[in-house]
Amino acid sequence: MNIGILGTGSVGATIGTRLVELGHLVMMGGRAATNEKAAAWVATTGADASQGTFADAAAFGEILFNCTKGEASADALRLAGADNLRGKTLLDVSNALDFSNGFPPSLSVCNTDSLGEQLQRAFPEARIVKTLNTMWAGLMVNPTMLADGAHSVFVSGNDAAAKRQATELLRAFGWPDASIIDLGDLSTARGTEMVLPLWLRLYGKLQTGAFNLAVVRQ
Amino acid sequence: MNIGILGTGSVGATIGTRLVELGHLVMMGGRAATNEKAAAWVATTGADASQGTFADAAAFGEILFNCTKGEASADALRLAGADNLRGKTLLDVSNALDFSNGFPPSLSVCNTDSLGEQLQRAFPEARIVKTLNTMWAGLMVNPTMLADGAHSVFVSGNDAAAKRQATELLRAFGWPDASIIDLGDLSTARGTEMVLPLWLRLYGKLQTGAFNLAVVRQ
Repeated sequence: MNIGILGTGSVGATIGTRLVELGHLVMMGGRAATNEKAAAWVATTGADASQGTFADAAAFGEILFNCTKGEASADALRLAGADNLRGKTLLDVSNALDFSNGFPPSLSVCNTDSLGEQLQRAFPEARIVKTLNTMWAGLMVNPTMLADGAHSVFVSGNDAAAKRQATELLRAFGWPDASIIDLGDLSTARGTEMVLPLWLRLYGKLQTGAFNLAVVRQ
Repeated sequence: MNIGILGTGSVGATIGTRLVELGHLVMMGGRAATNEKAAAWVATTGADASQGTFADAAAFGEILFNCTKGEASADALRLAGADNLRGKTLLDVSNALDFSNGFPPSLSVCNTDSLGEQLQRAFPEARIVKTLNTMWAGLMVNPTMLADGAHSVFVSGNDAAAKRQATELLRAFGWPDASIIDLGDLSTARGTEMVLPLWLRLYGKLQTGAFNLAVVRQ
C-alpha cells in the first residue's frame, strides 16, 4: 500500500521505516520538497522510501500518518491540502506539547478539547484516528520488544472503517488484539492526549522511553 | 495510629474501613458533626470508627486523608482548620471533576496546575501527598485483588518524610514496593490528575472499576 507520512522527525522516520519493512511504499512529507532529514531517511531506507512536500505525501498515500509536532499539525494538514486528505484514514500520532515555558511542557489544548478533534473539525472529510500518541516511537512499531506486547495502545475516532484500517496497521506492527483498546469516538482522544504529562514525568524518572502503560483488568 | 478521613462518601468509607481492619482508630469528618452516611459507616465498622466535623477529624488524626469531592476540597480543608492540618501528612485522593456539563466530566483544574498544588498553596503547613487518585476505591486499599498488585500507584509530594509515611500506608494496604512509583514533587500531581479523563472512558468501556493502569518497563 502507498502510505504518506506527514513530518520528517524521528517519529515519522521510525514509523516510515517499519512500514517499508512491512512491504509498503512510503513517502515522507515536509514543508519543502527536499529536506535533509527526509533525505537521510530515504537514503538509509531504500527504494521503497521517498520524500516530497506535505501535499506530495498526502496525495501519494492511501493512508496517512500525522507525525508532525502538535503545534505544527494544523498548518501541516493545511499545506497537505483538504483535497489530498479527503476520505483518507489519517492516523494522528501528534501531541499538543507546549515547550514555551520549558520542561516539562504543558499542553496547548486539553480537557474540553483535543488536538485530534481540532484537526478533525478543520478537515471534516479526513477520517482521523488518534492512536499511538501515548508512547515512545520505538514501541509504537515494535510493541513486542516490551513484555511481549502486553501493554496498551488506544484508538479513538469517529469513523469505524478508519479505526478498522488503523487497527490492521497496529496488528501488523505487532500489537496483540488484547492490547488494542478502542475507546470510542474522537472525543476520547482528550483522555489519551492528557496522558502526556504523566508520561513525561515517568520518562524523566525512568530515563528511558522503553516503557508503556497497560490497562490491567480482571 | 489515629487517622482522620475528610469526606463521608464511598471513597472515605472504603479507606476508613480498611484502616480500621489494619488496627487504626479512624474518625470520619463531614460538614456537620453528625451525618447519616458517616453514622452508617460507624455503625457497620465498629468501636474503632467514629465521626465528627471536618475539624474534629483533622484534630483527631495524626495522618489525614482528603476523600472529599475535588470541588469541595478547599472548603473542607478550610473547615478542618489550618491549625489542625499543620505538620500533618495529608493523603490527597481527590480529583477536580467538573460534572456541570454532564458526563464525562472535565477537570476544573489541570495542565499548568493541579488540585493537589492548590490545596498545598492554601495550606502550606500541611504535608500533602497526592496518591491513589488514579483508581477505583476498592483497588486503592486491596490492590492484590487484581493481578497480585502488579499495577501502579503514584506518589507526588514536596515532603520526603510525608511521602515515606504515605508509602508505609500503601504497603499496609497491600501495594508491592515495585508498584509504588514516586514521581517527584507535588507538581507531578498534574500528570496523575490528568489521567482521570482516560480512566473515565475506560470505566465506561469496561463497565467495572476493577481495572488499573500499570507502568510496564523492561
